Amino acid sequence: MKESWSSVDTLETNFRPLVVIELAKGTKEETIEWFTKRIVDKKANGGAQLLIKPLVTENGNENIYLVGASHLRLLLGAENVGLVKECNDNSMRAFTYSSRKTFKDFADDNQNFLTMSECQYIIKHELENLRAKDEKMIPGYPQAKLYPGKSIVRRLLTNGILVQIFPLHDREELKKLRHTWYGQVKIGYQPLDEIRCYFGETIALYFGFLEYFTFALIPMAVIGIPYYVFAWEDYDKYVMFATFNLLWSTVILEVWKRICAVMTYRWGTLLMKRQFEEPRPGFHGVLGINPVTGREEPVYSSIKRQLRIYFVSVPFVCLCLYFSLYVMMIYFDLEQWALDYHEENKSHFSSLMLYVPSIIYAVVIEIMNRIYRYAAEFLTSWENHRLESSYQNHLILKVLVFNFLNCFASLFYIAFVLFDMKLLRQSLATLLITSQILNQFAESLLPYWLQKRHMKKMKERMHSLKMDTDLSLVEQVNSEKEMGTYLGTFDDYLELFLQFGYVSLFSCVYPLAAVFAVLNNITEIYSDALKMCRVYKRPFAEPTANIGVWQLAFETMSVISVVTNCILIGMSPQVNALFPDSKMDLILTVALVEHLLLAIKFVMAFVIPDKPRDIQIKLAKLEFESLEALKQQMFTESYSYLCDDMREQ
Amino acid sequence: MKESWSSVDTLETNFRPLVVIELAKGTKEETIEWFTKRIVDKKANGGAQLLIKPLVTENGNENIYLVGASHLRLLLGAENVGLVKECNDNSMRAFTYSSRKTFKDFADDNQNFLTMSECQYIIKHELENLRAKDEKMIPGYPQAKLYPGKSIVRRLLTNGILVQIFPLHDREELKKLRHTWYGQVKIGYQPLDEIRCYFGETIALYFGFLEYFTFALIPMAVIGIPYYVFAWEDYDKYVMFATFNLLWSTVILEVWKRICAVMTYRWGTLLMKRQFEEPRPGFHGVLGINPVTGREEPVYSSIKRQLRIYFVSVPFVCLCLYFSLYVMMIYFDLEQWALDYHEENKSHFSSLMLYVPSIIYAVVIEIMNRIYRYAAEFLTSWENHRLESSYQNHLILKVLVFNFLNCFASLFYIAFVLFDMKLLRQSLATLLITSQILNQFAESLLPYWLQKRHMKKMKERMHSLKMDTDLSLVEQVNSEKEMGTYLGTFDDYLELFLQFGYVSLFSCVYPLAAVFAVLNNITEIYSDALKMCRVYKRPFAEPTANIGVWQLAFETMSVISVVTNCILIGMSPQVNALFPDSKMDLILTVALVEHLLLAIKFVMAFVIPDKPRDIQIKLAKLEFESLEALKQQMFTESYSYLCDDMREQ
Repeated sequence: MKESWSSVDTLETNFRPLVVIELAKGTKEETIEWFTKRIVDKKANGGAQLLIKPLVTENGNENIYLVGASHLRLLLGAENVGLVKECNDNSMRAFTYSSRKTFKDFADDNQNFLTMSECQYIIKHELENLRAKDEKMIPGYPQAKLYPGKSIVRRLLTNGILVQIFPLHDREELKKLRHTWYGQVKIGYQPLDEIRCYFGETIALYFGFLEYFTFALIPMAVIGIPYYVFAWEDYDKYVMFATFNLLWSTVILEVWKRICAVMTYRWGTLLMKRQFEEPRPGFHGVLGINPVTGREEPVYSSIKRQLRIYFVSVPFVCLCLYFSLYVMMIYFDLEQWALDYHEENKSHFSSLMLYVPSIIYAVVIEIMNRIYRYAAEFLTSWENHRLESSYQNHLILKVLVFNFLNCFASLFYIAFVLFDMKLLRQSLATLLITSQILNQFAESLLPYWLQKRHMKKMKERMHSLKMDTDLSLVEQVNSEKEMGTYLGTFDDYLELFLQFGYVSLFSCVYPLAAVFAVLNNITEIYSDALKMCRVYKRPFAEPTANIGVWQLAFETMSVISVVTNCILIGMSPQVNALFPDSKMDLILTVALVEHLLLAIKFVMAFVIPDKPRDIQIKLAKLEFESLEALKQQMFTESYSYLCDDMREQ
Repeated sequence: MKESWSSVDTLETNFRPLVVIELAKGTKEETIEWFTKRIVDKKANGGAQLLIKPLVTENGNENIYLVGASHLRLLLGAENVGLVKECNDNSMRAFTYSSRKTFKDFADDNQNFLTMSECQYIIKHELENLRAKDEKMIPGYPQAKLYPGKSIVRRLLTNGILVQIFPLHDREELKKLRHTWYGQVKIGYQPLDEIRCYFGETIALYFGFLEYFTFALIPMAVIGIPYYVFAWEDYDKYVMFATFNLLWSTVILEVWKRICAVMTYRWGTLLMKRQFEEPRPGFHGVLGINPVTGREEPVYSSIKRQLRIYFVSVPFVCLCLYFSLYVMMIYFDLEQWALDYHEENKSHFSSLMLYVPSIIYAVVIEIMNRIYRYAAEFLTSWENHRLESSYQNHLILKVLVFNFLNCFASLFYIAFVLFDMKLLRQSLATLLITSQILNQFAESLLPYWLQKRHMKKMKERMHSLKMDTDLSLVEQVNSEKEMGTYLGTFDDYLELFLQFGYVSLFSCVYPLAAVFAVLNNITEIYSDALKMCRVYKRPFAEPTANIGVWQLAFETMSVISVVTNCILIGMSPQVNALFPDSKMDLILTVALVEHLLLAIKFVMAFVIPDKPRDIQIKLAKLEFESLEALKQQMFTESYSYLCDDMREQ
């Protein structure tokens, strides 16, 4: 590893570059001086007490800085962010520097006690918590206002002075990880613990969920295959398959919570205390007093936000949904028109015309999706949420609803208005398969190819300069800073969510969907892994204890799928044949079955505990210990008071 | 107040009797001596450091003891139980003795800083936490085994050596409370804060809920009256009424959570930390190690408990439900038979015979309810739950399901099998009104009358003894120990729950139900208040932050009522007339509306925050402060480490 830092090593022996800061070209000297001084300044003076070095390239200083920290500083930072680590007695506890000896693998000279991604997370946290003292503005930029307690890095970012902060890859580790992850051709689990060490918990949890979900789909796929192979169309078999699917999807979502708890307990994030959340960078308002912290910060009335949400965002989303439905209706009209045209003319041209509506519709949907995504982001940021988490939740909700409609509205229309099961099966298959292929291509293979081309060019340029000093660190930083930024797991989860919809909403019509989903997810694991390791900048680790709002989204989807499947079964000719005389009995029976299934689902979700027993016991034990410690402390105090009391009497 | 304690005052000046302990007659001397020694012993020796005095009556010592505590002891106990009190800056904080000066109304000589019920709760807590040290058994009773850490009081109770522990009434305060609560004839809110001060949070919350629920029913009642008066039978009006009811019931349940949060924040229980729960008195098992505490205590395998629940309790409950349905069917057969008999004979005897089935059924239901209640208690205690809370939840669930069926099965049968709306309305009215009258009579008026008769006899007996010493404390203790024990709010909530069922399940058939419910609840408040103040022993205060499992029960009822009301409206002739040609369209429309209403309910429950904004801010502020304090402490520590580090370098 050492050789790649040689250019820095000559400057100081124990400096390990962890995070890269890129300032805008032409940033004023006084700003740079002030900013770097604040970073290295002592904690007591309001600094971050980190180490910083400029990166010297062939063109001189390009305003790129490497940030590191001493081992002790990192350990104290770990305590500060509330990192939870394993103790010698195998329990998980929040790390504190004073109790450091009780932690597993701790030794004063063991630099690997904290993983590199943990170190980078700590540095990011320390940088973001670098706060203005009495500065009224950023030196050299009078328009970039500061007030006491404002995060300096966030202000620099919103003013464009700071271009980006990103953590460095660790080439050796990455190579090892790539090898165990997707290097060998072998069937097996992903190295989730290694992924977590390298990329952090949010990304490891996504891959864990992807893997779990794939395994969970296998029973559905296995049961679905004979339906396709033997072309089973019996009523009872379909009902059995659908019922199994519905209950199974409840079980897998509940079991996931348990598996997630086991994983995040092992990783320590289940126990991590929620930190007080800062306002998100884009948040603005009149300078006022935050009622919670009592500190000066921008304040924005929650009533105004509610008004914006309910009177602008909600109507806008509804309008978009309506518009999307309208476009869908036009598509069906066009389709019908093309069919009629073909019937009448039966020419070569007319049979080509048959494809035109689908193509136009696909293109329009794609365009609408993109425009809507921008609109949703704009609206959500205009709603001016104070917290990043609430911004994310509102954005996810908006995008989710629209994508759900765009993907499934045509299927709903075919199923419940046209009553055409043949067409439904066909559309479902086409949509599922094409969307999977397009996604894999657009998401990983294309960026990978672009990235490779770019790297090749860069290398050629580098070599043409014919430098003989070892430039590998410079090279690494330069190539990594050009890589794309991974924007989070949003799109990956969205893809899985829509896939879950294809599999569960119409499962009794197209049992083979699960098979395709399984196949797709196996390649998805590889292509996502490739994307993480090769295409994007290393992301900062984000500690998290669960998949958040996505759990709710998947659960909602599984409730909706109970309704759709019950209706589909009720509409099948086999079931209709069972009630030859009375449509009414049929519908009443279907409604009864549906309500029963929903009731069973809710009872199951209620009965299955969210955390396995051993995790529950471990958590209870921790809580009990802290209560006991408190009691012990109280007892010592009250004992002294009571002794005084006795003496007085 | 002083005069009533004169018999004690002669012994010690600052002893205020708070709690009464009654030991069994003939308890061995050595046991009494050991027990009282443990109660007064110093904390450091494992005692409770409380004060105890025998109550000397005309017959000498009757094994009744009065327990009190010094003011300082109570304050330290308040810290120990985690009592939350208001500070000088109007925020709520956990009381600690060292920060006592910052609390509102605190003064070293102010004995009223803690309310009497708080003092009694503290004493109960201290007594229950009196634990065995190295005793292997209770002295004098070799069969009453002890092990280190076992609660002595619980062992004494299960062995019948300790007959009862109860808190004393405060006659002055009670008189004042009675006056403001139900003494004056005036319309107004109940004095909930005073009730809370005297009876504790659990009971105050019940009365708060009763009051809130009554107010919440008023809009339903007001809208319901014209339907009855003008005999409106229009389709659209009924739909409007039902829709209003369904959405309204969601809103009131959500708003209750907010009101409850406001109240319990003011009372401090919202912030109270959950204490570690001890095994309940009836819990038994092999002596083992508790995995959470690491202490010796009885251990019972959770798998065995699960087996007992799923293979004995659940089938038993199902069997009982089936049996109850069977009895109902017999009742309907009998009814039919009586009608036929009357038609044939038309005699005086036959018209009397018409009432026989109803009477038999009512009696059988009452008997079944009682037997089932015993069976449920037996089964739940046989399931051997470790915690009182989990015992309670399982018991409530069992009783709830059975009562629901017993009360509503016949109505469901009339509505959805016989399709007889006239009969439904009539049965609903009869059931609602008779159950309300019977309840009020059996619950408060009868016990009150019995109590009064008993008191009169006692007084006569007392006077005949012609004592001239002031016996009022002895009198008070003697009369209170004979009073019934209030068994908790279970039955009161159950009554409200069933009432909510009558009002909401068939609201569109009988809009007047809400009117009767409101009238009943107004008298219910008075009769329950009378019951609490006059009939029962004073109960120990129980801090609680919400109405627990009842919230869930009410919410479930409101979901069920969406389904029933939609079906009822769908069955009405007016709606049927709208779809003359196709029953199918009708059913589909009803199903669609039902799903929409359910969706709206869930969205509403999700959108309305459970706590009002100002409470949220106050809670966030407290959390932030504790985080900041932790950080400050960490900063001081790490600063010293970092300074060392700098010096070393």
